[in-house]
Amino acid sequence: QRTGDPEVVYGAGKTAEQTIGLLRALTEAHPDRPALATRLSAESLATVRAAFPEATVDDVAGAIAVGPMPTPVGLVCVVAAGTSDASVAAEATFTAQAFGAGVRKIVDVGVAGLHRLMDVKDQLDEADCLIVIAGMEGALPSVVGGLTGVPLVAVPTSVGYGASFGGVAALLAMLNSCAPGVVVTNIDNGFGAGVFAARVARRAGKPA
Amino acid sequence: QRTGDPEVVYGAGKTAEQTIGLLRALTEAHPDRPALATRLSAESLATVRAAFPEATVDDVAGAIAVGPMPTPVGLVCVVAAGTSDASVAAEATFTAQAFGAGVRKIVDVGVAGLHRLMDVKDQLDEADCLIVIAGMEGALPSVVGGLTGVPLVAVPTSVGYGASFGGVAALLAMLNSCAPGVVVTNIDNGFGAGVFAARVARRAGKPA
Amino acid sequence: QRTGDPEVVYGAGKTAEQTIGLLRALTEAHPDRPALATRLSAESLATVRAAFPEATVDDVAGAIAVGPMPTPVGLVCVVAAGTSDASVAAEATFTAQAFGAGVRKIVDVGVAGLHRLMDVKDQLDEADCLIVIAGMEGALPSVVGGLTGVPLVAVPTSVGYGASFGGVAALLAMLNSCAPGVVVTNIDNGFGAGVFAARVARRAGKPA
Amino acid sequence: QRTGDPEVVYGAGKTAEQTIGLLRALTEAHPDRPALATRLSAESLATVRAAFPEATVDDVAGAIAVGPMPTPVGLVCVVAAGTSDASVAAEATFTAQAFGAGVRKIVDVGVAGLHRLMDVKDQLDEADCLIVIAGMEGALPSVVGGLTGVPLVAVPTSVGYGASFGGVAALLAMLNSCAPGVVVTNIDNGFGAGVFAARVARRAGKPA
Amino acid sequence: QRTGDPEVVYGAGKTAEQTIGLLRALTEAHPDRPALATRLSAESLATVRAAFPEATVDDVAGAIAVGPMPTPVGLVCVVAAGTSDASVAAEATFTAQAFGAGVRKIVDVGVAGLHRLMDVKDQLDEADCLIVIAGMEGALPSVVGGLTGVPLVAVPTSVGYGASFGGVAALLAMLNSCAPGVVVTNIDNGFGAGVFAARVARRAGKPA
Amino acid sequence: QRTGDPEVVYGAGKTAEQTIGLLRALTEAHPDRPALATRLSAESLATVRAAFPEATVDDVAGAIAVGPMPTPVGLVCVVAAGTSDASVAAEATFTAQAFGAGVRKIVDVGVAGLHRLMDVKDQLDEADCLIVIAGMEGALPSVVGGLTGVPLVAVPTSVGYGASFGGVAALLAMLNSCAPGVVVTNIDNGFGAGVFAARVARRAGKPA
Amino acid sequence: QRTGDPEVVYGAGKTAEQTIGLLRALTEAHPDRPALATRLSAESLATVRAAFPEATVDDVAGAIAVGPMPTPVGLVCVVAAGTSDASVAAEATFTAQAFGAGVRKIVDVGVAGLHRLMDVKDQLDEADCLIVIAGMEGALPSVVGGLTGVPLVAVPTSVGYGASFGGVAALLAMLNSCAPGVVVTNIDNGFGAGVFAARVARRAGKPA
Amino acid sequence: QRTGDPEVVYGAGKTAEQTIGLLRALTEAHPDRPALATRLSAESLATVRAAFPEATVDDVAGAIAVGPMPTPVGLVCVVAAGTSDASVAAEATFTAQAFGAGVRKIVDVGVAGLHRLMDVKDQLDEADCLIVIAGMEGALPSVVGGLTGVPLVAVPTSVGYGASFGGVAALLAMLNSCAPGVVVTNIDNGFGAGVFAARVARRAGKPA
Ligand SMILES: Nc1ncnc2c1ncn2[C@@H]1O[C@H](COP(=O)(O)O)[C@@H](O)[C@H]1O
Ligand SMILES: Nc1ncnc2c1ncn2[C@@H]1O[C@H](COP(=O)(O)O)[C@@H](O)[C@H]1O
Ligand SMILES: Nc1ncnc2c1ncn2[C@@H]1O[C@H](COP(=O)(O)O)[C@@H](O)[C@H]1O
Ligand SMILES: Nc1ncnc2c1ncn2[C@@H]1O[C@H](COP(=O)(O)O)[C@@H](O)[C@H]1O
Ligand SMILES: [Mg+2]
Ligand SMILES: [Mg+2]
Ligand SMILES: [Mg+2]
Ligand SMILES: [Mg+2]
Ligand SMILES: [Mg+2]
Ligand SMILES: [Mg+2]
Ligand SMILES: [Mg+2]
Ligand SMILES: [Mg+2]
Repeated sequence: QRTGDPEVVYGAGKTAEQTIGLLRALTEAHPDRPALATRLSAESLATVRAAFPEATVDDVAGAIAVGPMPTPVGLVCVVAAGTSDASVAAEATFTAQAFGAGVRKIVDVGVAGLHRLMDVKDQLDEADCLIVIAGMEGALPSVVGGLTGVPLVAVPTSVGYGASFGGVAALLAMLNSCAPGVVVTNIDNGFGAGVFAARVARRAGKPA
Repeated sequence: QRTGDPEVVYGAGKTAEQTIGLLRALTEAHPDRPALATRLSAESLATVRAAFPEATVDDVAGAIAVGPMPTPVGLVCVVAAGTSDASVAAEATFTAQAFGAGVRKIVDVGVAGLHRLMDVKDQLDEADCLIVIAGMEGALPSVVGGLTGVPLVAVPTSVGYGASFGGVAALLAMLNSCAPGVVVTNIDNGFGAGVFAARVARRAGKPA
Repeated sequence: QRTGDPEVVYGAGKTAEQTIGLLRALTEAHPDRPALATRLSAESLATVRAAFPEATVDDVAGAIAVGPMPTPVGLVCVVAAGTSDASVAAEATFTAQAFGAGVRKIVDVGVAGLHRLMDVKDQLDEADCLIVIAGMEGALPSVVGGLTGVPLVAVPTSVGYGASFGGVAALLAMLNSCAPGVVVTNIDNGFGAGVFAARVARRAGKPA
Repeated sequence: QRTGDPEVVYGAGKTAEQTIGLLRALTEAHPDRPALATRLSAESLATVRAAFPEATVDDVAGAIAVGPMPTPVGLVCVVAAGTSDASVAAEATFTAQAFGAGVRKIVDVGVAGLHRLMDVKDQLDEADCLIVIAGMEGALPSVVGGLTGVPLVAVPTSVGYGASFGGVAALLAMLNSCAPGVVVTNIDNGFGAGVFAARVARRAGKPA
Repeated sequence: QRTGDPEVVYGAGKTAEQTIGLLRALTEAHPDRPALATRLSAESLATVRAAFPEATVDDVAGAIAVGPMPTPVGLVCVVAAGTSDASVAAEATFTAQAFGAGVRKIVDVGVAGLHRLMDVKDQLDEADCLIVIAGMEGALPSVVGGLTGVPLVAVPTSVGYGASFGGVAALLAMLNSCAPGVVVTNIDNGFGAGVFAARVARRAGKPA
Repeated sequence: QRTGDPEVVYGAGKTAEQTIGLLRALTEAHPDRPALATRLSAESLATVRAAFPEATVDDVAGAIAVGPMPTPVGLVCVVAAGTSDASVAAEATFTAQAFGAGVRKIVDVGVAGLHRLMDVKDQLDEADCLIVIAGMEGALPSVVGGLTGVPLVAVPTSVGYGASFGGVAALLAMLNSCAPGVVVTNIDNGFGAGVFAARVARRAGKPA
Repeated sequence: QRTGDPEVVYGAGKTAEQTIGLLRALTEAHPDRPALATRLSAESLATVRAAFPEATVDDVAGAIAVGPMPTPVGLVCVVAAGTSDASVAAEATFTAQAFGAGVRKIVDVGVAGLHRLMDVKDQLDEADCLIVIAGMEGALPSVVGGLTGVPLVAVPTSVGYGASFGGVAALLAMLNSCAPGVVVTNIDNGFGAGVFAARVARRAGKPA
Repeated sequence: QRTGDPEVVYGAGKTAEQTIGLLRALTEAHPDRPALATRLSAESLATVRAAFPEATVDDVAGAIAVGPMPTPVGLVCVVAAGTSDASVAAEATFTAQAFGAGVRKIVDVGVAGLHRLMDVKDQLDEADCLIVIAGMEGALPSVVGGLTGVPLVAVPTSVGYGASFGGVAALLAMLNSCAPGVVVTNIDNGFGAGVFAARVARRAGKPA
């Protein structure tokens, strides 16, 4: 692995046994860093966790990290409006930590409650990189991007119905954000946002 | 006209002469109310205006009203972020006035400048109906809808490029607004929003 | 809640227990008004209803309101063509009532039976706000909008197959309605239409 | 030509000279029937008409027929709401006549004026085939199809803006019509509707 | 029923009991003609058929007609390439018969076997109206339309995968057919094609 | 150039001077093979041709080849229905020749005239690779693919209007062809088809 | 069968019994060549295999060939990045073999590991035709096409989530490849790629 | 300006005079930092430049910066394949410099020439943030992302034709990149990428 970053198994569509085998091979090759598996179903996660009792697990994300977690460097702040986006927020958080950043989570802040958002402005400004997650109309990154100049990665989620088209409405909103300097990942891609933000934070930050 | 509302000529794709003829016929049939023409090019508008020197004209909207304007009843508030959406805001304003409502315009408020938006909250609360106009990511209606419980009509505009798809990004965002009670018109349809909001305001309001 | 409006739990994707907990918290915070939950499955609704035996329930909508319902002010008229759109019509009706409006339902009127529609014209004219619901080609709002000048909120439904694209055909038809002053909600969004129409009716109407 | 039907030159993207050459060849091969050219610009039409001074010409359609027009058999009725759809209605009419049907045109009937539509019900019932043309939300075929059992061909037009997507909204509405037995052509395809309806009318009708 | 045509229950999404109730009401109101139900699941069809032992049933279509079938007038020819489109072909056939036309079925003719198609050209020419059904690339109507001048209704089916997009590829192909006079129905809408073709055939044909 | 194939300048969006400069550099680097420029406007082509008086030019394609053309090996057959697709057919032909294949052109064969197609079956069978070009409904490759087992590259063109969506209808039809072994290029990409087919023909064929 | 190629049963949506019947009929008609069935579920495949114990079977592809496999002529090289695309790669391999080509498989080469790709360049150059399979962003064919001049068929797969839209992202990438001479099949269509590549290889190659 | 970043005028759709006025106001308010204008036509740029003779100008980007440019901190590397993407690369470069980063440009590296890309791997690794620009199939970010672990912002461009859909193909490819940690901007949005990358680089880097 050219970058020293952890290797990752994409668990969707794999059996628990396949995932265990891949994780075992990766940890043997690189015992110094975590090997991740993401997008595990609850059943898969139970089986995999039983095979690696010392692993770090996030049930909401359906993710597991086998091997030593890195010492956090720099600060990623994960911002989300509600419980519907919880699994994406968890995946982003878990990934950023496994890729070496410290993470602060700010949830329950939405565009419909501006005061609560303004109250956390200082916390946002302290971060080295923001991950802002939203479904439906995907307005949250524009509002957060208007409050702060910290690098901001927006993650659209598939939360919504009808003309949300499985996250397309939020994706388009984020790509068209009038707040300058908003960049975007694929729908529900908390993993990609976590990798990117951790790389930014590690370059910018100091060990916690 | 079953409702007492003004008749309207859609000027796009008509010659100035056709528009003049249609306006003349409408004002003769209903001398007690205005006859409107919208979406006139600058050249068409000049010719039409010369034919009706006493008409009410809005150059930004490319619209004209021939005949007596109604006494305003109730208050529509038109909200827009910037100069790019000016022609749609002007069309909405002009239409709402011709359909019998008083109109207050609040421009230069965007999601990237929340303080300015919060400063006008009282003005928003006084309205009988809001028209909120936005292009690009179309987030403004969600933010305004989180500040106030006044009925809110959102108008997406075709302002933007790339993945804005001529206003589709803003349209989808507004249809998916997490602020309850946001309703939406077609892209750039300031006219439809003006008609609707005036009807709401006339029912709710008192003569100015 | 800044507007005095009820708080609402979106039940889709929540367990009955989560919904019960949220409803309990909301009714404790605001004992003077209803707390709603919508989009509950039949199973969830049974469990939630058992927890709040005095609640108001609509089985067709899959919705429940805990706490005192408001005294209706103004009149919303909900119009739908057939039984396929029944759950959306029920959601709109239930929501408008919980948000403080009186509601009259007119069903079984479709574009294919114009006489029946014309027979109810007087009832349409008495309303303060109309909610017109249609799937497939979504023509009903245009026809109703040609009959009356009452503010009209159109709700496309996902009823249809093939090139209806889950309600997109009806949504586009409504956004392009040639009847002036038609505004539109997201596909199947009876809730949003109900909130909006109740707000309009409360401003326009007198207590029933 | 296997069917005895006229041959047709699609004029869009051809020079007047190319069109003249093709028409000349076709009339020489089949002097007993008309050779058509459609979709000619005003300039092209002027040049082509000068080359065939005895031809039948429709300026609104931009179409010309060289050679003897057939004796009309059966009755096609072309229905359209407004002037915006005039060129498509003219193309349908001209084509149906050149393909051997009698044509009656009923314009200025729209979904917003139901009384006017009902007034012409008897004329609709007398036809052997209907061609119903509409842009924007494309609701007219559903309404006409609810009034009569005559075979009905719906033609969506590209009239509209924003979310009409160049006629796609009307096309989808017509494909999803709840009136049974509505069939549809491509956007703006008055030609195809005219060919089809003439074939139906000729089989059904009696010489005028 | 203004046209004397049968009434039809759309069975998808209805319980067998609902369908039985509707059929009973319709046959009581119009004992002189069939009442249809379409799109019944195998289970529903079994229950409904048990309630009407004398009904006419098509298992492949999932359709039933209660009451006396009409004497066929005119000839509809239903053309399809393969077994994948069988249920749509059956729905078209069953509907055209219930709406009063005689029907001939020609299956197993595809664009990949031109000789077989040419062998049936005479049978195609004898029809009063053709229904041509195809999924995937939807080329069959263009090829048939090049062989004959009989009015041709094309029905796209949802058969296919990947970039067939549930029948959209076939629908677009048919709308763009270079064979003049091809008209189109919604995806899988054998019912609509059957109604339309029967109406054409009844006008054109003589009792069998 | 790793393959010995000619280098190509994509002329769209380049000035004639830029194109001349690039062609001069390429011919100096590889005097043994042609350097191509494609998609030149008529004006550009005139200027470039003047700079290389001995070049091979195709006016319909808007293409030029500077330097010695290769000795043709193998046979590509380019098949197209009509004059509308002429420029794409010319680009495919010119490219295949410059990339070293012999080319036979068969035009004026369409799905509406099957006899003409069957008459050329022997010519199709002699080819090493077919390029079949079609706009509108894009049915020609399916029909040709049913007649012969020669490798077949389908090229959709942007010819059409309305629901052809600039060639998308034809592209989808070709991707869904029921004739096995049809492969597809981008819309209007005669160049890509020519390169591919020449490579196939050169491997399969014998020097002419 | 005009080409001597095997006949193929598309097993999706057919019962095992239907498939067995069709295979039996085909092998009786052409005992000299294989009859194929593709897209069989694991259950179907078990039943079909039991009926033809000597058949050639590929479990990953869900495909079976009954009858004598042809002697391979020429070399097809199937290239894929990962295990997610395994079933498509297996279908392409199996089909190319049944259609008479020799096949070499190169898996586990992706755009993220360029060195591994470059290591196999010689193997790529030896092939008569390449099949390059990729999901998600579909970049692999462009990279391989930059390394070699061998004819290259790209197969997009439906592997991915969110804005991959079931393979559309990969399909579009491949259609727009900047490597000249890349042609494309439908999403997941390993079968079509196998047929095409075998035809190319048989013409180019020598018996193994 | 909350962040100390420059203010920017979006010049598209503004007159030169409007742009000059806005720039003058911004430079007076913040004489310590540059005021930018982007997306100026060649004519507008000439007029604006004449008004600010000391401004920094980029003709390829159509951009101007009035006032003192910041001392560069950190290193952004802008990577693009060809001349077609030059204006987007120039906009990204100019913006990143005006927002305070040092910039290195690497052009003429494409997926079709892997050796050239590998030759610059060390330069890529030295950057604090990469901006990778590509049109057509948008594969370059995946390839670069496989070579290095530096944070990577991908910018799709509208370069292409047919099924590139104005940059949508490249956008989708980048959103689905299998290289972890690729984030994306709107089509042609060099400005947004420049702002984002400069913010990352300033946090990570040391003064040049
Ligand atoms: N298979 C079908 N496809 C499309 N429309 C149908 C079908 N069967 C019935 N319909 C239509 O559905 C209407 C009845 O719908 P419903 O009242 O929901 O039973 C009929 O009047 C028909 O126009
Ligand atoms: N007509 C064409 N259609 C598609 N691609 C082309 C065409 N002509 C040239 N190309 C490609 O464009 C590349 C050159 O692009 P450029 O460097 O911008 O001139 C060539 O290597 C070809 O792969
Ligand atoms: N896996 C596959 N993908 C696409 N087309 C296939 C596949 N397998 C078979 N076919 C095609 O389907 C045809 C047979 O379809 P059917 O008659 O329904 O079995 C064959 O002639 C093939 O052209
Ligand atoms: N080239 C560009 N692309 C996208 N957004 C831009 C560009 N240039 C400026 N902007 C944004 O547009 C805003 C100014 O818009 P305006 O007020 O219309 O001049 C700035 O704050 C930037 O965020
Ligand atoms: Mg959200
Ligand atoms: Mg805006
Ligand atoms: Mg309906
Ligand atoms: Mg219309
Ligand atoms: Mg088919
Ligand atoms: Mg064609
Ligand atoms: Mg892949
Ligand atoms: Mg590129």
